[in-house]
Amino acid sequence: MLAARRRFPAAPEPFLDLSTGIAPRAYPMPPLPPEAFARLPEPSAQAMLCRLAAARYDVPAGARVVAAPGTQILLPMIAALRPPGIARILGPTYAEHARAATLAGHEAREVGALAELTPASLVTVVNPDNPTGQVLAAETLAALAARQRGDGGLLVVDEAFGDADPDLPSALPLVPGGGVVVLRSFGKFHGLAGLRLGFAVAPEGVAARLEALLGPWAVSGPALLAGQAALADEAWAASQRAHLAAAAARLDGVLRQAGLVVLGGTPLFRFIQAPPGTFERLGRAGILVRAFAHWPDRLRIGLPPDDAAFARLAAALA
Amino acid sequence: MLAARRRFPAAPEPFLDLSTGIAPRAYPMPPLPPEAFARLPEPSAQAMLCRLAAARYDVPAGARVVAAPGTQILLPMIAALRPPGIARILGPTYAEHARAATLAGHEAREVGALAELTPASLVTVVNPDNPTGQVLAAETLAALAARQRGDGGLLVVDEAFGDADPDLPSALPLVPGGGVVVLRSFGKFHGLAGLRLGFAVAPEGVAARLEALLGPWAVSGPALLAGQAALADEAWAASQRAHLAAAAARLDGVLRQAGLVVLGGTPLFRFIQAPPGTFERLGRAGILVRAFAHWPDRLRIGLPPDDAAFARLAAALA
Repeated sequence: MLAARRRFPAAPEPFLDLSTGIAPRAYPMPPLPPEAFARLPEPSAQAMLCRLAAARYDVPAGARVVAAPGTQILLPMIAALRPPGIARILGPTYAEHARAATLAGHEAREVGALAELTPASLVTVVNPDNPTGQVLAAETLAALAARQRGDGGLLVVDEAFGDADPDLPSALPLVPGGGVVVLRSFGKFHGLAGLRLGFAVAPEGVAARLEALLGPWAVSGPALLAGQAALADEAWAASQRAHLAAAAARLDGVLRQAGLVVLGGTPLFRFIQAPPGTFERLGRAGILVRAFAHWPDRLRIGLPPDDAAFARLAAALA
Repeated sequence: MLAARRRFPAAPEPFLDLSTGIAPRAYPMPPLPPEAFARLPEPSAQAMLCRLAAARYDVPAGARVVAAPGTQILLPMIAALRPPGIARILGPTYAEHARAATLAGHEAREVGALAELTPASLVTVVNPDNPTGQVLAAETLAALAARQRGDGGLLVVDEAFGDADPDLPSALPLVPGGGVVVLRSFGKFHGLAGLRLGFAVAPEGVAARLEALLGPWAVSGPALLAGQAALADEAWAASQRAHLAAAAARLDGVLRQAGLVVLGGTPLFRFIQAPPGTFERLGRAGILVRAFAHWPDRLRIGLPPDDAAFARLAAALA
């Protein structure tokens, strides 16, 4: 936001930040007693959190959930599960995957086609994709997993945006077969990104390695309490899915009304084709969206939080 | 605590947990607006937190502060700054250092004498030590740093319990010379261990590597706000030092009154010689302290939080 203010110093404040894919409607934080801040989190509380996550995500037997202070910190740890070699990421996508693989010593590169992903010791796909929203079919995921297992490689499937639609294909059923690690994000769907909470789902041996690297007390007291409450609250999750779907449809209406082409996305963000200058036009109106250096005519737009924000976006695009 | 309840099922509740070295008087949490939980932390806020930490710890030019969700998660990252080799830890001490070095592929072992620490690619000392409270002199730290620099090795100095007495020798002045990383804990002195916040101080190149491994948004919104408030609050820090010193002196009085020998410690915990059975006797009274498998006649005891807790400890030892 600081960078946005520097770039558009004359924009009306406050800025409307539509540059992320975080739900604008947040899970209501449970009361946080002083002990949640003061004491080291109990290992039993973290174990309970992981059981609730396993139930929410429908994690199969033979796969275990590991809790972390956000999935971001897991990326270099997971990339280092294989010795330095070739890393391929289906892209263009979330750039942190290539960065993490490079940090772990791999020769890392985004490739544009499934056929170019293998052979590689580390294959990463984001499903549904960020920012395009493209979805890989269950058979495609299974084929990638089989290929990686045969080669002694690893398949990483980032399902950070998977919670908004539980009917999407998931790689979780593939985890018990080995060679597959799945990432799930807590903060995006629950609108609590500042808490820092995310999960890896991995076979037992890999899960134990990740837990050892994270150490005890990886998750903060506030994240433990909010995570436990939210992951046990199926009614809220169902209402959130309905809310996100409605907000995404409303956003599509605003975008189409302005003559923009919605190419795809997920219920947490839309991916659009927009004439050159749209990013700057929105920026001067105090609205920050996500631009891409390699796609000058495309933008990613998050969900406006309320009626006023929808109206402000519509006015800026009019 | 769950384990304590299982071991002493007849103990009176609630348990009094004196098994940690966390200050029982906590820094008052600042108000946490919804955005602290909802939004991704701003990089500029984390940079400000690191500047405040640098001021509090008197970090010299040429050394940079890196913020993490607790120092624990940094240990394997720091151990992996050198290729697998020999790791030596001055001990017996906090066991996580040997565990982290082993995880990073080192042949890791605790040794009892300074002379046995080198040669090693990774040398770790805890200063002041946990649990003995022993303090290494500035000259000793400087000699270890010089030796490690000459050998291309690394010296890690864990100053987790250094905040309670800022006059203690610190390795921070040695960081700009290279080959030295210092760890500082936020949660122990400020009584906010559940927040998960800690720091590494390292030369620029090493700091950049650690920041890359941690990724953006390593520190949660609540930890950022509380950390900024607490690290800027020198008056509270001074009052906390006085409070801890007084509580430690009072604890020494209770322990000596009971005929126990106080061997050392820091203002955040005391290290005592106690007759066999003292741990069990306290446990049956619902008081949990820290025992050591390798030191059956020694215990570490944290500060009782209030008059009632002091009285309960005195009664259990009477």
